[in-house]
Amino acid sequence: MNFVQKKRAVLVKLEDAKYQGEVDREVYDLLDTINDLEKFYTTSSCAGRFVIMAKNKVRDKYNTSYFFKTHNPEEIINCIDLEYDQEYGELWLMLEAPNFHIICNSIESANKIHKSALNSGLGYSKIQSVKPSFVVEILGTGRVATPIGKNSDILIEELYFKYLLNVAKSIMEEDQKRLKTWEEQLKNDFK
Amino acid sequence: MNFVQKKRAVLVKLEDAKYQGEVDREVYDLLDTINDLEKFYTTSSCAGRFVIMAKNKVRDKYNTSYFFKTHNPEEIINCIDLEYDQEYGELWLMLEAPNFHIICNSIESANKIHKSALNSGLGYSKIQSVKPSFVVEILGTGRVATPIGKNSDILIEELYFKYLLNVAKSIMEEDQKRLKTWEEQLKNDFK
Repeated sequence: MNFVQKKRAVLVKLEDAKYQGEVDREVYDLLDTINDLEKFYTTSSCAGRFVIMAKNKVRDKYNTSYFFKTHNPEEIINCIDLEYDQEYGELWLMLEAPNFHIICNSIESANKIHKSALNSGLGYSKIQSVKPSFVVEILGTGRVATPIGKNSDILIEELYFKYLLNVAKSIMEEDQKRLKTWEEQLKNDFK
Repeated sequence: MNFVQKKRAVLVKLEDAKYQGEVDREVYDLLDTINDLEKFYTTSSCAGRFVIMAKNKVRDKYNTSYFFKTHNPEEIINCIDLEYDQEYGELWLMLEAPNFHIICNSIESANKIHKSALNSGLGYSKIQSVKPSFVVEILGTGRVATPIGKNSDILIEELYFKYLLNVAKSIMEEDQKRLKTWEEQLKNDFK
Protein backbone atom coordinates (compact mmCIF):
# COMPACT_ATOMS: atom_id res chain seq x y z
CA MET A 1 0.00 0.00 0.00
CA ASN A 2 1.20 3.50 -0.71
CA PHE A 3 0.96 6.47 1.69
CA VAL A 4 -2.50 7.57 0.52
CA GLN A 5 -3.94 4.06 0.79
CA LYS A 6 -2.45 3.53 4.24
CA LYS A 7 -3.76 6.90 5.40
CA ARG A 8 -7.24 6.04 4.22
CA ALA A 9 -7.18 2.70 6.07
CA VAL A 10 -5.87 4.24 9.29
CA LEU A 11 -8.49 7.01 9.25
CA VAL A 12 -11.27 4.46 8.94
CA LYS A 13 -9.87 2.78 12.06
CA LEU A 14 -9.67 6.14 13.81
CA GLU A 15 -13.36 6.81 13.21
CA ASP A 16 -14.14 3.39 14.62
CA ALA A 17 -11.97 4.05 17.69
CA LYS A 18 -13.76 7.38 18.24
CA TYR A 19 -17.08 5.56 18.05
CA GLN A 20 -15.83 3.05 20.66
CA GLY A 21 -14.84 5.92 22.97
CA GLU A 22 -11.15 5.03 22.71
CA VAL A 23 -9.96 8.46 21.55
CA ASP A 24 -9.55 11.43 23.90
CA ARG A 25 -12.30 13.93 23.08
CA GLU A 26 -10.01 16.82 24.02
CA VAL A 27 -7.92 16.24 20.92
CA TYR A 28 -10.60 15.53 18.28
CA ASP A 29 -10.08 18.97 16.71
CA LEU A 30 -6.32 18.67 16.71
CA LEU A 31 -6.47 15.22 15.12
CA ASP A 32 -8.74 16.61 12.42
CA THR A 33 -6.34 19.49 11.80
CA ILE A 34 -3.44 17.07 11.32
CA ASN A 35 -5.35 14.52 9.27
CA ASP A 36 -6.75 17.25 7.01
CA LEU A 37 -3.18 17.88 5.87
CA GLU A 38 -2.26 15.85 2.81
CA LYS A 39 1.25 15.03 4.03
CA PHE A 40 0.36 13.49 7.40
CA TYR A 41 -1.82 11.11 9.32
CA THR A 42 -2.02 10.20 13.01
CA THR A 43 -1.70 6.66 14.32
CA SER A 44 -2.05 7.25 18.05
CA SER A 45 -2.89 10.08 20.38
CA CYS A 46 -3.12 10.90 24.07
CA ALA A 47 -4.23 14.29 25.39
CA GLY A 48 -2.00 13.84 28.43
CA ARG A 49 -3.02 12.07 31.61
CA PHE A 50 -2.58 11.49 35.32
CA VAL A 51 -1.63 7.96 36.28
CA ILE A 52 -1.53 6.00 39.53
CA MET A 53 0.16 2.69 38.96
CA ALA A 54 1.74 -0.07 40.98
CA LYS A 55 4.67 -2.15 39.87
CA ASN A 56 6.52 -5.10 41.29
CA LYS A 57 9.84 -3.36 41.40
CA VAL A 58 11.75 -0.36 40.07
CA ARG A 59 11.89 -0.35 36.27
CA ASP A 60 9.46 -3.23 36.01
CA LYS A 61 7.75 -2.66 32.70
CA TYR A 62 5.43 -5.63 32.65
CA ASN A 63 4.25 -6.58 36.14
CA THR A 64 2.24 -3.43 36.60
CA SER A 65 -1.25 -2.55 37.61
CA TYR A 66 -2.98 0.71 36.72
CA PHE A 67 -5.38 2.08 39.30
CA PHE A 68 -6.08 5.27 37.44
CA LYS A 69 -5.43 6.69 33.99
CA THR A 70 -7.37 9.89 33.81
CA HIS A 71 -7.48 13.39 32.36
CA ASN A 72 -9.07 14.72 35.52
CA PRO A 73 -6.88 14.93 38.65
CA GLU A 74 -10.03 15.26 40.80
CA GLU A 75 -10.64 11.58 40.14
CA ILE A 76 -7.53 10.53 42.00
CA ILE A 77 -7.68 12.93 44.91
CA ASN A 78 -9.07 10.16 47.13
CA CYS A 79 -6.45 7.59 46.32
CA ILE A 80 -4.42 8.69 49.32
CA ASP A 81 -6.45 5.93 51.00
CA LEU A 82 -5.86 3.50 48.17
CA GLU A 83 -5.45 -0.12 49.16
CA TYR A 84 -3.15 -2.07 46.94
CA ASP A 85 -1.68 -5.50 47.14
CA GLN A 86 1.72 -6.01 48.67
CA GLU A 87 2.78 -8.07 45.65
CA TYR A 88 3.19 -4.71 43.95
CA GLY A 89 6.26 -3.27 45.61
CA GLU A 90 5.80 0.33 44.52
CA LEU A 91 3.03 2.79 43.88
CA TRP A 92 3.77 5.70 41.52
CA LEU A 93 2.08 8.97 40.64
CA MET A 94 2.83 10.14 37.14
CA LEU A 95 1.82 12.93 34.87
CA GLU A 96 2.27 11.90 31.24
CA ALA A 97 2.48 14.71 28.70
CA PRO A 98 0.34 14.90 25.53
CA ASN A 99 1.60 12.45 22.96
CA PHE A 100 0.87 11.85 19.26
CA HIS A 101 2.38 9.71 16.55
CA ILE A 102 2.28 11.07 13.04
CA ILE A 103 3.21 9.33 9.80
CA CYS A 104 4.69 11.72 7.24
CA ASN A 105 4.95 11.34 3.47
CA SER A 106 8.60 12.46 3.26
CA ILE A 107 11.62 13.30 5.37
CA GLU A 108 11.07 16.99 4.53
CA SER A 109 7.52 17.02 5.86
CA ALA A 110 8.63 15.04 8.95
CA ASN A 111 11.30 17.64 9.56
CA LYS A 112 8.88 20.51 9.14
CA ILE A 113 6.15 19.21 11.45
CA HIS A 114 8.77 18.26 14.03
CA LYS A 115 10.18 21.81 14.01
CA SER A 116 6.68 23.31 14.31
CA ALA A 117 6.02 21.25 17.45
CA LEU A 118 9.35 22.28 18.99
CA ASN A 119 8.55 25.93 18.23
CA SER A 120 5.25 25.58 20.09
CA GLY A 121 6.96 24.35 23.24
CA LEU A 122 6.29 20.63 22.71
CA GLY A 123 9.97 20.19 23.41
CA TYR A 124 10.33 16.42 23.66
CA SER A 125 8.98 15.88 20.15
CA LYS A 126 11.20 13.80 17.95
CA ILE A 127 11.67 12.07 14.66
CA GLN A 128 11.02 8.58 15.90
CA SER A 129 11.80 6.61 12.81
CA VAL A 130 12.92 7.18 9.23
CA LYS A 131 12.58 3.60 8.07
CA PRO A 132 10.35 1.97 6.87
CA SER A 133 8.09 5.00 7.52
CA PHE A 134 8.78 8.59 8.50
CA VAL A 135 7.31 8.79 12.00
CA VAL A 136 7.29 11.90 14.18
CA GLU A 137 6.36 11.69 17.84
CA ILE A 138 4.88 14.86 19.29
CA LEU A 139 5.51 15.02 23.04
CA GLY A 140 5.11 17.72 25.67
CA THR A 141 7.74 18.40 28.32
CA GLY A 142 5.52 18.36 31.41
CA ARG A 143 6.51 15.62 33.83
CA VAL A 144 5.79 14.42 37.30
CA ALA A 145 7.09 10.95 38.19
CA THR A 146 7.36 9.98 41.81
CA PRO A 147 6.99 6.88 43.97
CA ILE A 148 4.37 7.56 46.66
CA GLY A 149 3.89 4.15 48.22
CA LYS A 150 5.63 0.89 49.04
CA ASN A 151 4.49 -2.59 50.10
CA SER A 152 0.83 -1.66 50.62
CA ASP A 153 1.66 1.58 52.45
CA ILE A 154 1.19 5.14 51.26
CA LEU A 155 4.33 7.08 52.19
CA ILE A 156 3.11 10.66 51.88
CA GLU A 157 0.67 12.87 53.79
CA GLU A 158 -2.66 13.92 52.34
CA LEU A 159 -1.70 17.61 52.25
CA TYR A 160 1.43 16.89 50.25
CA PHE A 161 -0.47 14.56 47.93
CA LYS A 162 -2.92 17.36 47.17
CA TYR A 163 -0.02 19.70 46.53
CA LEU A 164 1.53 17.20 44.10
CA LEU A 165 -1.76 16.90 42.23
CA ASN A 166 -2.13 20.67 42.03
CA VAL A 167 1.33 21.08 40.60
CA ALA A 168 0.66 18.27 38.13
CA LYS A 169 -2.61 19.93 37.14
CA SER A 170 -0.99 23.27 36.40
CA ILE A 171 1.72 21.55 34.36
CA MET A 172 -0.96 19.78 32.35
CA GLU A 173 -2.85 23.03 31.74
CA GLU A 174 0.29 24.61 30.35
CA ASP A 175 0.82 21.65 27.99
CA GLN A 176 -2.79 21.95 26.80
CA LYS A 177 -2.14 25.60 25.94
CA ARG A 178 0.92 24.58 23.97
CA LEU A 179 -1.15 22.04 22.05
CA LYS A 180 -3.55 24.85 21.08
CA THR A 181 -0.63 27.03 20.01
CA TRP A 182 0.71 24.20 17.90
CA GLU A 183 -2.66 23.58 16.27
CA GLU A 184 -2.75 27.24 15.13
CA GLN A 185 0.85 26.93 14.00
CA LEU A 186 -0.01 23.88 11.87
CA LYS A 187 -2.84 25.73 10.16
CA ASN A 188 -0.42 28.52 9.26
CA ASP A 189 2.60 26.43 8.33
CA PHE A 190 0.84 23.96 6.07
CA LYS A 191 -2.02 25.95 4.58
CA MET B 1 33.81 21.97 6.70
CA ASN B 2 32.98 18.40 5.87
CA PHE B 3 32.09 15.67 8.38
CA VAL B 4 35.68 14.55 8.93
CA GLN B 5 36.95 18.09 9.47
CA LYS B 6 34.13 18.92 11.88
CA LYS B 7 34.72 15.71 13.79
CA ARG B 8 38.41 16.53 14.17
CA ALA B 9 37.59 20.03 15.49
CA VAL B 10 34.99 18.75 17.96
CA LEU B 11 37.28 16.05 19.32
CA VAL B 12 39.99 18.63 20.00
CA LYS B 13 37.41 20.56 22.05
CA LEU B 14 36.40 17.35 23.85
CA GLU B 15 39.98 16.71 24.95
CA ASP B 16 40.13 20.26 26.25
CA ALA B 17 36.82 19.83 28.12
CA LYS B 18 38.13 16.61 29.68
CA TYR B 19 41.23 18.46 30.81
CA GLN B 20 39.03 21.16 32.39
CA GLY B 21 37.06 18.49 34.27
CA GLU B 22 33.87 19.28 32.36
CA VAL B 23 33.24 15.75 31.11
CA ASP B 24 31.78 12.98 33.30
CA ARG B 25 34.57 10.48 33.99
CA GLU B 26 32.05 7.62 34.11
CA VAL B 27 31.53 7.88 30.36
CA TYR B 28 35.10 8.41 29.09
CA ASP B 29 35.24 4.83 27.77
CA LEU B 30 31.86 5.05 26.11
CA LEU B 31 32.75 8.35 24.43
CA ASP B 32 35.96 6.77 23.14
CA THR B 33 34.01 3.80 21.79
CA ILE B 34 31.65 6.10 19.89
CA ASN B 35 34.31 8.49 18.65
CA ASP B 36 36.52 5.61 17.49
CA LEU B 37 33.78 4.79 14.96
CA GLU B 38 34.33 6.52 11.63
CA LYS B 39 30.66 7.39 11.13
CA PHE B 40 30.02 9.23 14.40
CA TYR B 41 31.18 11.82 16.86
CA THR B 42 29.78 13.05 20.17
CA THR B 43 28.99 16.70 20.87
CA SER B 44 27.67 16.45 24.42
CA SER B 45 27.34 13.87 27.14
CA CYS B 46 25.95 13.39 30.61
CA ALA B 47 26.29 10.16 32.58
CA GLY B 48 22.97 10.83 34.29
CA ARG B 49 22.53 12.90 37.44
CA PHE B 50 20.54 13.81 40.51
CA VAL B 51 19.33 17.40 40.63
CA ILE B 52 17.87 19.64 43.32
CA MET B 53 16.66 22.85 41.76
CA ALA B 54 14.42 25.77 42.63
CA LYS B 55 12.28 27.64 40.17
CA ASN B 56 10.04 30.67 40.36
CA LYS B 57 6.99 28.88 39.19
CA VAL B 58 5.77 25.74 37.46
CA ARG B 59 7.31 25.35 33.99
CA ASP B 60 9.68 28.24 34.54
CA LYS B 61 12.64 27.41 32.36
CA TYR B 62 14.81 30.41 33.03
CA ASN B 63 14.37 31.71 36.59
CA THR B 64 15.91 28.68 38.16
CA SER B 65 18.62 27.97 40.67
CA TYR B 66 20.49 24.69 40.92
CA PHE B 67 21.51 23.61 44.40
CA PHE B 68 22.87 20.26 43.33
CA LYS B 69 23.76 18.52 40.09
CA THR B 70 25.53 15.37 41.08
CA HIS B 71 26.19 11.76 40.15
CA ASN B 72 26.21 10.75 43.79
CA PRO B 73 22.88 10.76 45.66
CA GLU B 74 24.76 10.70 48.98
CA GLU B 75 25.69 14.32 48.33
CA ILE B 76 22.09 15.47 48.53
CA ILE B 77 20.93 13.35 51.42
CA ASN B 78 21.27 16.34 53.76
CA CYS B 79 19.32 18.77 51.66
CA ILE B 80 16.16 17.91 53.57
CA ASP B 81 17.32 20.84 55.71
CA LEU B 82 18.09 23.01 52.71
CA GLU B 83 17.34 26.70 53.08
CA TYR B 84 16.26 28.39 49.91
CA ASP B 85 14.91 31.81 49.14
CA GLN B 86 11.19 32.37 49.02
CA GLU B 87 11.58 34.12 45.66
CA TYR B 88 11.87 30.61 44.27
CA GLY B 89 8.37 29.24 44.54
CA GLU B 90 9.19 25.58 44.10
CA LEU B 91 11.92 23.13 44.94
CA TRP B 92 12.23 20.00 42.76
CA LEU B 93 14.06 16.71 43.00
CA MET B 94 14.90 15.20 39.65
CA LEU B 95 16.74 12.23 38.31
CA GLU B 96 17.94 12.91 34.78
CA ALA B 97 18.80 9.89 32.68
CA PRO B 98 22.11 9.46 30.77
CA ASN B 99 22.14 11.63 27.71
CA PHE B 100 24.41 11.91 24.66
CA HIS B 101 24.28 13.77 21.38
CA ILE B 102 25.87 12.10 18.40
CA ILE B 103 26.48 13.53 14.94
CA CYS B 104 26.21 10.88 12.21
CA ASN B 105 27.63 10.92 8.68
CA SER B 106 24.39 9.70 7.02
CA ILE B 107 20.75 8.98 7.67
CA GLU B 108 21.53 5.25 7.50
CA SER B 109 24.15 5.42 10.22
CA ALA B 110 21.85 7.64 12.34
CA ASN B 111 19.13 5.06 11.97
CA LYS B 112 21.44 2.20 12.89
CA ILE B 113 22.93 3.76 16.03
CA HIS B 114 19.44 4.88 17.11
CA LYS B 115 18.13 1.32 16.82
CA SER B 116 21.11 -0.07 18.73
CA ALA B 117 20.37 2.29 21.65
CA LEU B 118 16.69 1.32 21.68
CA ASN B 119 17.66 -2.36 21.67
CA SER B 120 19.83 -1.78 24.74
CA GLY B 121 16.94 -0.30 26.71
CA LEU B 122 17.84 3.38 26.21
CA GLY B 123 14.25 3.79 25.17
CA TYR B 124 13.89 7.58 24.90
CA SER B 125 16.65 7.82 22.31
CA LYS B 126 15.65 9.64 19.17
CA ILE B 127 16.70 11.05 15.86
CA GLN B 128 16.81 14.66 16.94
CA SER B 129 17.49 16.33 13.64
CA VAL B 130 18.05 15.40 10.01
CA LYS B 131 18.92 18.87 8.80
CA PRO B 132 21.47 20.44 8.55
CA SER B 133 23.16 17.52 10.38
CA PHE B 134 22.05 14.02 11.29
CA VAL B 135 21.84 14.18 15.08
CA VAL B 136 20.85 11.27 17.32
CA GLU B 137 20.10 11.83 20.98
CA ILE B 138 20.73 8.83 23.22
CA LEU B 139 18.53 9.00 26.32
CA GLY B 140 17.68 6.56 29.10
CA THR B 141 14.14 6.07 30.37
CA GLY B 142 14.80 6.45 34.11
CA ARG B 143 12.90 9.38 35.59
CA VAL B 144 12.07 10.90 38.89
CA ALA B 145 10.59 14.40 38.81
CA THR B 146 8.79 15.69 41.85
CA PRO B 147 8.24 18.98 43.67
CA ILE B 148 9.43 18.61 47.28
CA GLY B 149 9.22 22.17 48.58
CA LYS B 150 7.37 25.45 48.26
CA ASN B 151 8.01 29.03 49.40
CA SER B 152 11.07 28.22 51.53
CA ASP B 153 9.45 25.15 53.10
CA ILE B 154 10.33 21.51 52.57
CA LEU B 155 7.06 19.61 52.21
CA ILE B 156 8.22 16.03 52.77
CA GLU B 157 9.53 14.06 55.74
CA GLU B 158 13.14 12.95 55.99
CA LEU B 159 12.24 9.26 55.85
CA TYR B 160 10.29 9.72 52.63
CA PHE B 161 13.07 11.86 51.16
CA LYS B 162 15.55 9.06 51.80
CA TYR B 163 13.17 6.61 50.17
CA LEU B 164 12.89 8.85 47.10
CA LEU B 165 16.67 9.05 46.83
CA ASN B 166 17.01 5.28 47.17
CA VAL B 167 14.50 4.67 44.41
CA ALA B 168 16.25 7.25 42.23
CA LYS B 169 19.58 5.59 42.91
CA SER B 170 18.37 2.14 41.86
CA ILE B 171 16.87 3.62 38.69
CA MET B 172 20.19 5.25 37.90
CA GLU B 173 22.09 2.01 38.48
CA GLU B 174 19.84 0.24 36.01
CA ASP B 175 20.45 2.95 33.39
CA GLN B 176 24.22 2.62 33.93
CA LYS B 177 23.93 -1.11 33.21
CA ARG B 178 22.05 -0.34 30.02
CA LEU B 179 24.82 2.06 28.96
CA LYS B 180 27.34 -0.76 29.40
CA THR B 181 25.14 -3.11 27.36
CA TRP B 182 24.90 -0.49 24.63
CA GLU B 183 28.66 0.04 24.58
CA GLU B 184 29.17 -3.68 23.95
CA GLN B 185 26.43 -3.57 21.33
CA LEU B 186 28.20 -0.72 19.51
CA LYS B 187 31.45 -2.65 19.38
CA ASN B 188 29.61 -5.56 17.78
CA ASP B 189 27.32 -3.63 15.44
CA PHE B 190 29.95 -1.35 13.94
CA LYS B 191 33.11 -3.44 14.02
